Amino acid sequence: MSTNFGDRIVLAVREKRNPSVIGIDPRLESLPPELGRMIPDGENPDRKGVAEALLRFGLGIVDAVREIVPAIKPNIAFFEAHGNEGMIAYNGICRYARSCGLLVIGDVKRGDIGSTAAAYAAGLLGGAFGPHDALTLNPYLGTDSVQPFLAHEANAGFFLLVKTSNPSSAELQDLRLEDGSTVAEAAARLTHTLGQDRVGGHGLSAVGAVVGATHPRQLSRFRELMPAAPFLVPGYGAQGAGADDVVGAFRADGSGALVNASRSVIFAWQKEGKPDDWVGAARRAAERMRDDLRRALEGR
Amino acid sequence: MSTNFGDRIVLAVREKRNPSVIGIDPRLESLPPELGRMIPDGENPDRKGVAEALLRFGLGIVDAVREIVPAIKPNIAFFEAHGNEGMIAYNGICRYARSCGLLVIGDVKRGDIGSTAAAYAAGLLGGAFGPHDALTLNPYLGTDSVQPFLAHEANAGFFLLVKTSNPSSAELQDLRLEDGSTVAEAAARLTHTLGQDRVGGHGLSAVGAVVGATHPRQLSRFRELMPAAPFLVPGYGAQGAGADDVVGAFRADGSGALVNASRSVIFAWQKEGKPDDWVGAARRAAERMRDDLRRALEGR
Repeated sequence: MSTNFGDRIVLAVREKRNPSVIGIDPRLESLPPELGRMIPDGENPDRKGVAEALLRFGLGIVDAVREIVPAIKPNIAFFEAHGNEGMIAYNGICRYARSCGLLVIGDVKRGDIGSTAAAYAAGLLGGAFGPHDALTLNPYLGTDSVQPFLAHEANAGFFLLVKTSNPSSAELQDLRLEDGSTVAEAAARLTHTLGQDRVGGHGLSAVGAVVGATHPRQLSRFRELMPAAPFLVPGYGAQGAGADDVVGAFRADGSGALVNASRSVIFAWQKEGKPDDWVGAARRAAERMRDDLRRALEGR
Repeated sequence: MSTNFGDRIVLAVREKRNPSVIGIDPRLESLPPELGRMIPDGENPDRKGVAEALLRFGLGIVDAVREIVPAIKPNIAFFEAHGNEGMIAYNGICRYARSCGLLVIGDVKRGDIGSTAAAYAAGLLGGAFGPHDALTLNPYLGTDSVQPFLAHEANAGFFLLVKTSNPSSAELQDLRLEDGSTVAEAAARLTHTLGQDRVGGHGLSAVGAVVGATHPRQLSRFRELMPAAPFLVPGYGAQGAGADDVVGAFRADGSGALVNASRSVIFAWQKEGKPDDWVGAARRAAERMRDDLRRALEGR
């Protein structure tokens, strides 16, 4: 079995016939009531109660989607917010997801100078936090902030922030360079270069890019610039993008992109109005997303 | 007493007659032997032993420099690398430094979309990790990744990565835009704009910039673009820059910049060849740095 991360994506997506990823971003105020009750009111909620609620929420979401999606993407910020107890919950969710055969993409967006990047790599790929199959990284400091991660773990995958899904991503990422391309396109070229010698047997690299679904017209341009990069595409669902907006992220053979949804799936119980069936609501939302993506990809 | 972070820098620097900051970036392999002995050899060192060594090292460095410098800057990566035990050591060092009257700049380089940035702000300014008086942030995602931090804590300070000290910082940060300026200069303008309504009575904003000392000729240009921003200037010492290289970061009145040194101070025992007096070696290195900076600033 190949352990190249690009290959692992191809096989995992093929197995589930689904390129979607569920982002586990637990906001306390959106937890279902049975878990919300575990968190005492007040300015300083008991961290152990919070951590227990986060863990049970994450495990429930993994159970909801484990048969449907190939990967989850917990964002470490929502656990870091609750201190070490939050990080214990984070690790518990990552471990459980991996035991279910899911790929775990740690949304950590780290970026620091080389010697510090090596320390981040040691913690995030060496067992202190995770386990992670892949990480998101910030490219603003250039390749020497990414190389220590690549050197640390040959089988890990990385998604560099190229064009993010948030409104103010335009401020730096869309600036036009003197050669007519944009800053985000420069980040795309850097990503392509870093991934060139990490392309697996299925033609996908272990070094990929975050490219927001909220910029559908740009997706095909980024695909041209990074033909072998797996794309991690946030912005689906609550951030406004739909299945037709993301098809440009995929390669001609239908591979090459992972589409992430967070709030629209994990808090689907709110929209369904079924607080007691929050796991079922998440499952149904994940199934709808999968079916929408299949339709859009087959119809293009 | 004003609580604006810009004012706090001015007063703290004035009190010590020293604009230097000591970066606490403990690499296990560089710890003095008495602490190294606490870490068993092997692939998976005992985390409790590591954390105890990190804590004792950090407290020793704080003791070495507390009478000399106005601030410390622990880089969270070197603690995250050792899991929750490492983070307990991180918190212990931050708490102790603050109890000694030092400003604590958490070198965390976070950057994520708005709703996630709010979670990071809650954790890093709300008591889960720290305490911090200021944080470093990555500007690649634009202002909506910074605003939640500003909104969370009116008295905190922030240093946005504008031009970092590492060699590959040129890859994105030095790219020339169609208007002739660079990406880093665009980040500088963004920093200036974000900080405009946070300028304290002493003329310094709570929103500052990281500008590497390894680019001395660019410092004055960045000072022009961000007249009120406090500069956090890494790269002094082990990364190659000296006191004369950083004078351009300061304003005409000698205020406005904090110069960071890490390895050259905290591991000064290696150069002195005095493993048993690692605290004294750090103190002497911090004093030399202070004296060099005073001379360079008075001589310009």
